[in-house]
Amino acid sequence: MKHILIIGAGLSSSTMISYLLERSYDYDWKIVVADVNKALAEQKIKKHANASAVEFDINSNLALTTLVAAADIVVSMLPARFHPLVAEECLKQRKHLFTASYVSPEMQALNDEAQEKGLLFMNECGVDPGIDHMSAMKVIDEIRAKGGKFISFESNTGGLVAPEFDNNPWNYKLTWNARNVILAGQSGARFLHNGNYKYIPYNRLFTRTDRLSVLDYGEFDVYANRDSLIYRKIYGIEDIATIFRGTFRRPGYCEAYNALIQIGLTDDSYELVNAADLTNRSFIASFLPEPEGKEIEDVFCEYLGINRESDVFKKIEWLGIFEESKIAKGMKTPAQILQSIIEPKWKLDKGDLDMIVMQHRFEYTLNSKKYRRLSSMIVIGKDNTNTAMSITVGMPVAIAIEEFLNGKFKVRGVQIPVIPELYEPILSKLAPLGVEFVEEEFEI
Amino acid sequence: MKHILIIGAGLSSSTMISYLLERSYDYDWKIVVADVNKALAEQKIKKHANASAVEFDINSNLALTTLVAAADIVVSMLPARFHPLVAEECLKQRKHLFTASYVSPEMQALNDEAQEKGLLFMNECGVDPGIDHMSAMKVIDEIRAKGGKFISFESNTGGLVAPEFDNNPWNYKLTWNARNVILAGQSGARFLHNGNYKYIPYNRLFTRTDRLSVLDYGEFDVYANRDSLIYRKIYGIEDIATIFRGTFRRPGYCEAYNALIQIGLTDDSYELVNAADLTNRSFIASFLPEPEGKEIEDVFCEYLGINRESDVFKKIEWLGIFEESKIAKGMKTPAQILQSIIEPKWKLDKGDLDMIVMQHRFEYTLNSKKYRRLSSMIVIGKDNTNTAMSITVGMPVAIAIEEFLNGKFKVRGVQIPVIPELYEPILSKLAPLGVEFVEEEFEI
Repeated sequence: MKHILIIGAGLSSSTMISYLLERSYDYDWKIVVADVNKALAEQKIKKHANASAVEFDINSNLALTTLVAAADIVVSMLPARFHPLVAEECLKQRKHLFTASYVSPEMQALNDEAQEKGLLFMNECGVDPGIDHMSAMKVIDEIRAKGGKFISFESNTGGLVAPEFDNNPWNYKLTWNARNVILAGQSGARFLHNGNYKYIPYNRLFTRTDRLSVLDYGEFDVYANRDSLIYRKIYGIEDIATIFRGTFRRPGYCEAYNALIQIGLTDDSYELVNAADLTNRSFIASFLPEPEGKEIEDVFCEYLGINRESDVFKKIEWLGIFEESKIAKGMKTPAQILQSIIEPKWKLDKGDLDMIVMQHRFEYTLNSKKYRRLSSMIVIGKDNTNTAMSITVGMPVAIAIEEFLNGKFKVRGVQIPVIPELYEPILSKLAPLGVEFVEEEFEI
Repeated sequence: MKHILIIGAGLSSSTMISYLLERSYDYDWKIVVADVNKALAEQKIKKHANASAVEFDINSNLALTTLVAAADIVVSMLPARFHPLVAEECLKQRKHLFTASYVSPEMQALNDEAQEKGLLFMNECGVDPGIDHMSAMKVIDEIRAKGGKFISFESNTGGLVAPEFDNNPWNYKLTWNARNVILAGQSGARFLHNGNYKYIPYNRLFTRTDRLSVLDYGEFDVYANRDSLIYRKIYGIEDIATIFRGTFRRPGYCEAYNALIQIGLTDDSYELVNAADLTNRSFIASFLPEPEGKEIEDVFCEYLGINRESDVFKKIEWLGIFEESKIAKGMKTPAQILQSIIEPKWKLDKGDLDMIVMQHRFEYTLNSKKYRRLSSMIVIGKDNTNTAMSITVGMPVAIAIEEFLNGKFKVRGVQIPVIPELYEPILSKLAPLGVEFVEEEFEI
């Protein structure tokens, strides 16, 4: 019998827990789900005979020691900043660890000790990071094995609303953490294009978009992610001339969101003096020049050099940003206030399904010919619990646990799934679950 | 005999030291100038019989104790972050302290103890902060005494090149710390206009300018300073409907500087990957979309929506930013590189004189009539040492010391010159030195 401890029963844990519970009879697994909110943990295990729910606060060290002691492997689905705490305990008690998050420097520092003790600390095993690594490395390893030489690699991912439920002017609904969407891109972006390093500041990021098609799902705009350069090393393609990672949105979203950025509404670095007295309308007026008798809608348009018939203006107006409704209590920074205005408008309604879109675009040469390879994945959510986001984040972790407990992974230490031993079995089991890539290749 | 210890012999100390030395025979003062660079201290005292120069590193506590012990009053012209260290020593040894810098929370915290011990810790006694406080409060106190009620207060200051030497396309030369000019405005700005709080993000700051005339010195553009709101409390005008503080530049400067901001060249938050390999031209290209066969000058213009005949483009081109010259060694962030390109172009040449421009604009009602009061100061530098900046920063401190030693100031504790006891004698002695305000008033 193996004991699996899962810490954190949030949205991203749902599909993972279901997957593990379904297989728990076959494999003789016992699963403990620990969360600060015990009811949430209970809801996830649905009184399953092989599972138990416990109330657990990560700030209580004693409880962590006891929980880890009873486990064979530990899965941390907590916010990433807590992983090192869990990892230290796992080292102390010689337990394996799984997370879906980026390897922090603190986590990386534990590599040697984990290896010495024969422990696997598996990270970046969700969708982005996770499925992106696995699917990209599969193509990279395959093309390199044939003797291909990479010129360009662009990789884009987006969490969106499924086409059937895509019925608002932004063609966007919130399928994940709203705050991350509001603050996206604030550090600007850097990438490599045709051998030239490129830097985009935040105030230009949403204007420097590319338009791409993915399978028969129509067109998307892409804005650049923070730092694409580091992926040269991670994927072992250090001499590539173009490397770019971006985020998918539907056409028009970026141009309209840029208007909010330009005005200053996405700033989270200071609090408004008089937030409690504001309405949506006086909030936006605070960022505009004096109206001097004009309607502030017109001031807004003049300020941005757009007109009231434009799609940008229509999208902004639809958010209710010019309405005389009171700002929600407790909102203080411009970004908090903007989020409180946007969140109800971009809400994923009951019954709405979400969609994850991922596409890698490689260019490479082989035998003096040049090829483009597209590797595309679309996952549509199943219901309000098993969303596309929950499936693609949780399933790779769940499969990684399954395969590890089946003895498939020999590698130890702090790992991410960029080697065949790790990505092959996970991708193989993801495909029949509908998480799979369509490959297209053309000579160019 | 009184001993004056001056710590820091930089540019802003020159005029102050000369002023104190000139009066040292009359008053029987001995002056010690301490600087980490002894030669600089020696250069400032010019072998004067009443002065001595010492080498001193603020990080050496022992030397600070000895120097302060020998002094009756201490003047800190060090960077502001060192003032608390000097202030603590002054408290310990019961010495008075003078600085030209803003009162930090650390300095403010010493107020009670300084008062108990009967010590004056005088701060914000330069030009901005300093002369701005004194001259504004003089008008505020005068109008309030008549029964006037303030509607609006706008106060603008700029360090510029004197008109006779104003001979480059930017109508600007560096008369002070270049880095501060390059990074100016990055926190955005907040102010109050007609009772409405206004917020401007950095990427809009240099587009939201006002154009003003000052005496017969022609027109200036003004961009908003960081936080104008705090001055309501400092000046005791809490119920005013408009309060705004800004920085003067000549017309056209802000619009052109905004182009550099928009591109991302003023960012100081990250280092370029390949700074050592860049030329000015490849540096700017890193921030632009791919040229695709076009000249990067054209890409630059298209990106910003300007044309090559525009004044903005001509100013930018004149900086040499499109030239194939190597980037200076050791420059890493965009802002550092930009500064290294701009600094030689905006250099104040030998013989060039600088200029400080300050103007307060009050609106108030009195006996049912409405008035505008303008209070304007222009100071032109005398030579390369006694620059307008050095005069206006150093002279108020020097006079404050003189008046204090003459027993004119009874107030104690941490102070700034906003009360008549402090500002009246300083302003009276500044006027005959050419640092004076021209008052204009109109009914409106």
